[in-house]
Amino acid sequence: MSLRRSFATLTKGLRPTIRQLLSQSSQASPTTPIQVNGWVKSVRRQKRVAFAVITDGSSPLGLQAVFLDPALARSLTNGAAVRLTGMLANSIGAGQAKELQVHTVDIVGECNPEILTTILSMQTYPIQKKALTTEYLRDHCHLRTRTDEGASVVRLRHDTLNALHSYFQAQGFCYAHTPLVTSSDCEGAGETFRIGTLLSSQSSGDKEADKQPPEFFGRPAYLTVSAQLHLEALSASISRVFTISPCFRAERSQTGRHLAEFWMLEAEWAFTESVDDLCQVAEDAIKSTLRQPSADLAALQTGMDPSRAKILQDAARPDRWPRITYTEAIIELEKVQASRRLFEFPVGWGRTLQSEHERWVAEHLVGGPVFVTDYPTQLKPFYMRQNVEGDTVACFDLLVPHLGELIGGSLREEREDKLLQAIEHHGLNLEDYKWYVDLRKYGGAPHGGFGLGFERLISWLSGIENIRECIPMPRWAGRMLL
Amino acid sequence: MSLRRSFATLTKGLRPTIRQLLSQSSQASPTTPIQVNGWVKSVRRQKRVAFAVITDGSSPLGLQAVFLDPALARSLTNGAAVRLTGMLANSIGAGQAKELQVHTVDIVGECNPEILTTILSMQTYPIQKKALTTEYLRDHCHLRTRTDEGASVVRLRHDTLNALHSYFQAQGFCYAHTPLVTSSDCEGAGETFRIGTLLSSQSSGDKEADKQPPEFFGRPAYLTVSAQLHLEALSASISRVFTISPCFRAERSQTGRHLAEFWMLEAEWAFTESVDDLCQVAEDAIKSTLRQPSADLAALQTGMDPSRAKILQDAARPDRWPRITYTEAIIELEKVQASRRLFEFPVGWGRTLQSEHERWVAEHLVGGPVFVTDYPTQLKPFYMRQNVEGDTVACFDLLVPHLGELIGGSLREEREDKLLQAIEHHGLNLEDYKWYVDLRKYGGAPHGGFGLGFERLISWLSGIENIRECIPMPRWAGRMLL
Repeated sequence: MSLRRSFATLTKGLRPTIRQLLSQSSQASPTTPIQVNGWVKSVRRQKRVAFAVITDGSSPLGLQAVFLDPALARSLTNGAAVRLTGMLANSIGAGQAKELQVHTVDIVGECNPEILTTILSMQTYPIQKKALTTEYLRDHCHLRTRTDEGASVVRLRHDTLNALHSYFQAQGFCYAHTPLVTSSDCEGAGETFRIGTLLSSQSSGDKEADKQPPEFFGRPAYLTVSAQLHLEALSASISRVFTISPCFRAERSQTGRHLAEFWMLEAEWAFTESVDDLCQVAEDAIKSTLRQPSADLAALQTGMDPSRAKILQDAARPDRWPRITYTEAIIELEKVQASRRLFEFPVGWGRTLQSEHERWVAEHLVGGPVFVTDYPTQLKPFYMRQNVEGDTVACFDLLVPHLGELIGGSLREEREDKLLQAIEHHGLNLEDYKWYVDLRKYGGAPHGGFGLGFERLISWLSGIENIRECIPMPRWAGRMLL
Repeated sequence: MSLRRSFATLTKGLRPTIRQLLSQSSQASPTTPIQVNGWVKSVRRQKRVAFAVITDGSSPLGLQAVFLDPALARSLTNGAAVRLTGMLANSIGAGQAKELQVHTVDIVGECNPEILTTILSMQTYPIQKKALTTEYLRDHCHLRTRTDEGASVVRLRHDTLNALHSYFQAQGFCYAHTPLVTSSDCEGAGETFRIGTLLSSQSSGDKEADKQPPEFFGRPAYLTVSAQLHLEALSASISRVFTISPCFRAERSQTGRHLAEFWMLEAEWAFTESVDDLCQVAEDAIKSTLRQPSADLAALQTGMDPSRAKILQDAARPDRWPRITYTEAIIELEKVQASRRLFEFPVGWGRTLQSEHERWVAEHLVGGPVFVTDYPTQLKPFYMRQNVEGDTVACFDLLVPHLGELIGGSLREEREDKLLQAIEHHGLNLEDYKWYVDLRKYGGAPHGGFGLGFERLISWLSGIENIRECIPMPRWAGRMLL
């Protein structure tokens, strides 16, 4: 596509981004000047020439700007917003194919390296070139995406969403929006945020009224912990549905794998009858993200430990990822615990797999992603489908090296009588789940699905250890900026 | 693409949907039997043959199933989940190109027309073929997508999201996730939901503790009313960002245009300096949805009032939608009010445009979508950019016939001194907006954006009057099922 035609498809008023300029202008040196908007990443001044790197956040690559008249670059400072005009030309320097030979410079947003705010205090631009600590950047999360890594994470999220969307669409899934405000606690874990109105949180002075604040929705309202139950309702008519929805858990744990607000991809589909089928869809979905063309993924993986990078490469191959049962995993864990005492937490059939166990299975037993299936009934929520033997349910967790659980899924109990037993057994209030039982009463097909922690996926793909760095504005216990 | 090759791209375990079957099998009568999963929409039995329409929710078209042995269809009931095998063949009947000649029938989820639940009460399938009232379907929203319209709305949302995604991606926008849990009230309207933990909503018995419940985040937390301020932070490094995010307003108004939980597309971009540019992007985004190929949009528009359908057709044309200023609109409204007294609410410069005024401007003054720009400063939030004259701000509302406001947007005040004045003028706490002011202090480029009510768009495109029918599981004051 020619430069001219590409630009014509852009809306009037939107000039090409640096990414569009660098990717489209395969023909050398067009003869008309162009305009570039962006922020100054760095400036290098010499006697007869000056250079600056300009970024507009559209790609991990900045545009090299060359000032043959160094006076033009005099007022440039790191972080300043600028509008440059000039000619895009083939670069003779190393490191970039194109450069902008600058004619005019417009500073449209100043960024003074030092601002005298009062007589005594100086304020400097918080995003200096020097290395900034993770903690410092969390404290400045409104500016964090001005760092290379911060911006790459936002773009990688975009690319990864695209890969997942494409995969699910090709499989005939319909993207659906499920409610965030709900009346139920899907996982039954009790770590649910409660919603009130501003009014109801203020004391009215009336003691009785304070005890029973008026409910905006006429009943107690919570923030969703999972879209699954609502997706099940939709899958009972649309067949294949998925969503990428915020979820909320009032967990006080401060690990690198938990946030109070996180995004989860959840897929649910009807007419599936085996865990193996569920695993196949999960595997293919993740593989689509491992194979996505993403300059940011490449940038973030630079410097990744080679053994870790190899695991990602191997996982992208067509070979099917291993599947083992929970029972098989426990046997292996018990063996290694007996001989080498590797684990802090006890191992045994009927016990939860702790993160250390999950990682050992993925990293040492398998050396890559692995599906662990058919967990004990007592460890899992009420909605999972009972296996024939009765003491396990038809479910899976996808465990991956360096992280542990990335996906959890199951067949759902579609048999009305078994579901009613499970609701009673878990001590749930049947009245709350009447609608959910209805789905089985009227043409309830066998169905299943899974949930994928989106920030965990970004962490695993990029090698960024803590998921607080895998979301632009993280929230956790005690922390909510902006 | 041949049938065989298309199927090979499907994940093992996922059979082709009815939509895939109907769209791909252009070659006549493949010679191998296929399997179709779905629900029975209707059954018609004759002496020597039976017919059923099967849907799996993948398209507004069902698949006609033909039973040359009518005994095969004996146990079929409306709503039952079935698995059929047979041959896909060219149909000799009118109304469909293909039909399934059924060999075997498997009922995988029964739907008995009448179930004896107790000795005295009979329970019937809630989604009968007869016309069901809007109110009845709202009461059964877990089953509502089993109706043709309910399912079409879900798929139209999917198609419309795709159209918007494609448009913004082509323009170099990055899709970003902004937080739902926030510390601020962007619009300053005070209709914000408050978040607590389950713990803090229970009385501890300690009077002091009850007054000051422990905050999970260490400070008061609210549900977002708009992603805009957070998108502004991202646009100050990524340049062009958009999101489609749930928003929450504790409005008690019971109009057909308001929900307590709704989805909003918000776009924000840097280096834009005119409202006209903002309007252009908004117009092109909406036009992409008017031009989308969607069988569901066509199905929903069937039977639409012809004058209404014509407005949508005309709006899709390349002609630029009109732009008028608020001041010009007021002059016209005053004229018509003086001569014909059409409006309930008073009209005058400095007064809010009520829904009746907005609709008159779109329906009668213009006869199509219209941008109204440059509203009085006093009517708009603190963040909008002051015009040179000082009494108006650089903003727009997109008004459309039959609905009123569909989009609102503005340039944002990027000048630090003006922003500080506006924060003070609106009586906001500067400490809460320190991060927002920082965005101007350090390389703050001119920027702007808009917000588009997604359910309102679906309502306008489909002709479904009330937005409670434009979202699968609506929430409003006093109402939250599931």
